[in-house]
Amino acid sequence: MSTAFTRIPADTLRQTFYTILVRNGMPEARAALCAQIFTTNSLEGVYTHGVNRFPRFIRYVRDGYVHMDKEPTRTGGFGSIEQWNGNLGPGVLNALQSTERAMELAAQHGLGCVALANTNHWMRGGYYGWHAALSGYAFIGWTNTLANMPAWGAIDSKLGNNPLVIAVPYKDSAIVVDTAMSQYSYGALDLYKTKGESLPVPGGYDIRGNLTQDAAAILDSKRVLPIGYWKGAGLSLILDVLATILSGGQATHEISKLPAEHALSQVFIAFDLSKLRNQPLIEQAIQSIITDYLASTPEQPDKNVRYPGEKAKHTIAENEKLGIPVADAVWNEILSL
Amino acid sequence: MSTAFTRIPADTLRQTFYTILVRNGMPEARAALCAQIFTTNSLEGVYTHGVNRFPRFIRYVRDGYVHMDKEPTRTGGFGSIEQWNGNLGPGVLNALQSTERAMELAAQHGLGCVALANTNHWMRGGYYGWHAALSGYAFIGWTNTLANMPAWGAIDSKLGNNPLVIAVPYKDSAIVVDTAMSQYSYGALDLYKTKGESLPVPGGYDIRGNLTQDAAAILDSKRVLPIGYWKGAGLSLILDVLATILSGGQATHEISKLPAEHALSQVFIAFDLSKLRNQPLIEQAIQSIITDYLASTPEQPDKNVRYPGEKAKHTIAENEKLGIPVADAVWNEILSL
Repeated sequence: MSTAFTRIPADTLRQTFYTILVRNGMPEARAALCAQIFTTNSLEGVYTHGVNRFPRFIRYVRDGYVHMDKEPTRTGGFGSIEQWNGNLGPGVLNALQSTERAMELAAQHGLGCVALANTNHWMRGGYYGWHAALSGYAFIGWTNTLANMPAWGAIDSKLGNNPLVIAVPYKDSAIVVDTAMSQYSYGALDLYKTKGESLPVPGGYDIRGNLTQDAAAILDSKRVLPIGYWKGAGLSLILDVLATILSGGQATHEISKLPAEHALSQVFIAFDLSKLRNQPLIEQAIQSIITDYLASTPEQPDKNVRYPGEKAKHTIAENEKLGIPVADAVWNEILSL
Repeated sequence: MSTAFTRIPADTLRQTFYTILVRNGMPEARAALCAQIFTTNSLEGVYTHGVNRFPRFIRYVRDGYVHMDKEPTRTGGFGSIEQWNGNLGPGVLNALQSTERAMELAAQHGLGCVALANTNHWMRGGYYGWHAALSGYAFIGWTNTLANMPAWGAIDSKLGNNPLVIAVPYKDSAIVVDTAMSQYSYGALDLYKTKGESLPVPGGYDIRGNLTQDAAAILDSKRVLPIGYWKGAGLSLILDVLATILSGGQATHEISKLPAEHALSQVFIAFDLSKLRNQPLIEQAIQSIITDYLASTPEQPDKNVRYPGEKAKHTIAENEKLGIPVADAVWNEILSL
């Protein structure tokens, strides 16, 4: 980080979040859980969707987009799939409850799906993948967002970047892919622009339609690159369609007309691996895949490849030991909430 | 196409496939279905996984990798998820049967999943998405493959390109995303190399590690680019893990040790949309999304954006009217089978 920061102990962060949440109308037990999720996201190094995002979350509460006291209600269901209304409650609590309900449905039916309408930003989608995987479930989930990415061949943003999360248990940990359909988030582009650094790979088009690694040029054109060009654009579109029709909620084009990004649609699918015939062999099967994968010949001899989620443990250990790095400006803003 | 080709009527193609399949040991009713799938893939313009691939399919039968008379058998299941053994039968028939079984499970449970081990190449994954969507189901499916793509930061291929298919019904048609986790297939790279044309977007690295649009340079380095760089690499890894553990079948690293690409693992998930509370509103919801999407401002004024699957109808109509364009070399090879 180029800005000044202080390492804040996780307990301090959690307690601070908790106090502010309760003061802003969240019931105590739910505030403890919500504070825990924001803290865990920060502990694991995803500051953008942890501590850095907390002030905006409180602002959304005060602006009436997030309703602190609201919980999801079941609106429909058939067998292994259920539809819920998030009632504009806190996105992280709605998403966690939906994940747990998908796991319950999976325990009952082998496979379970919760489609959630009218919810709010889930912050870091990977959290729910980790949560399911650490309990022995495989997980597929995604959210729609407001429009922030152009269709392939277009210059205006009609698509969301619609993060997709896929997770599987792995030993006492997990393999977790948590990926937006855009190559970089606007937050990441801002960061590179501020640092004056070039993006590691092309992240969008400049105003003249040339592919570029210049974050500032992409922020100017607003032509963020979908992963795999037309491929990520297609995936984004169909993830929005599926989230919208499965939940009966709002689509990206509707969310984009609202004064702020809220009232999202999300999908949570869990697989109960304990119900599979080959359950005793699963850990060994994953171990073999990862062993082969890690034996890749790295491009730079000193940089071994990593699997998605591998770094989490190290980051947690470091942040637990040293404290969570919080930009002074962010910390001051939080203390003023 | 730079090579000479002839337009062959779909009926001739279908009849030719059928005769060859029966002559090579496939029971008649199954041969009719298999010939139909190869023909449909060609009619819809996916020649690489239709007519062009038919000779290799027959070669695999003769080499003993594909067993013409084998059908899948159920090996396990719990509620809405079932595990099947493909018994190395023809991949397209195994995949179609698995799609239909997933749809049956969905009709019963809202959501249905078939995980298929020990099967063969499904040719064009989009076929099964279309099949489910045209019957009113949403569909998510994927297959693993042999290793043909490096992990992020690596130079040797440990990952498959593991095509992912997502489909939803749309009016009397469908929206179908069918995308490998690599930016281009080796087949596409060969085609660009032969034509001496530059790739439209970067497709991999050259031998010195520079991102390039030169297909020949990528064929030399074998460093095919995952969609979204590290993102597509992560998705590929976890799709392989999931296909392997859900089916109890072989992973990419195991398939890669076989003398030819066979004995694959696949997943087929269907959602019965008729069971949803908001079912009467689904068509309108999709229509609104597509209407907004198609109102994108195109980069080139005469080139409107298209949604995935939009082109299919036009291609089918053209190929039905004029015949399916088949390279003379391919057609001669087929006639000699």
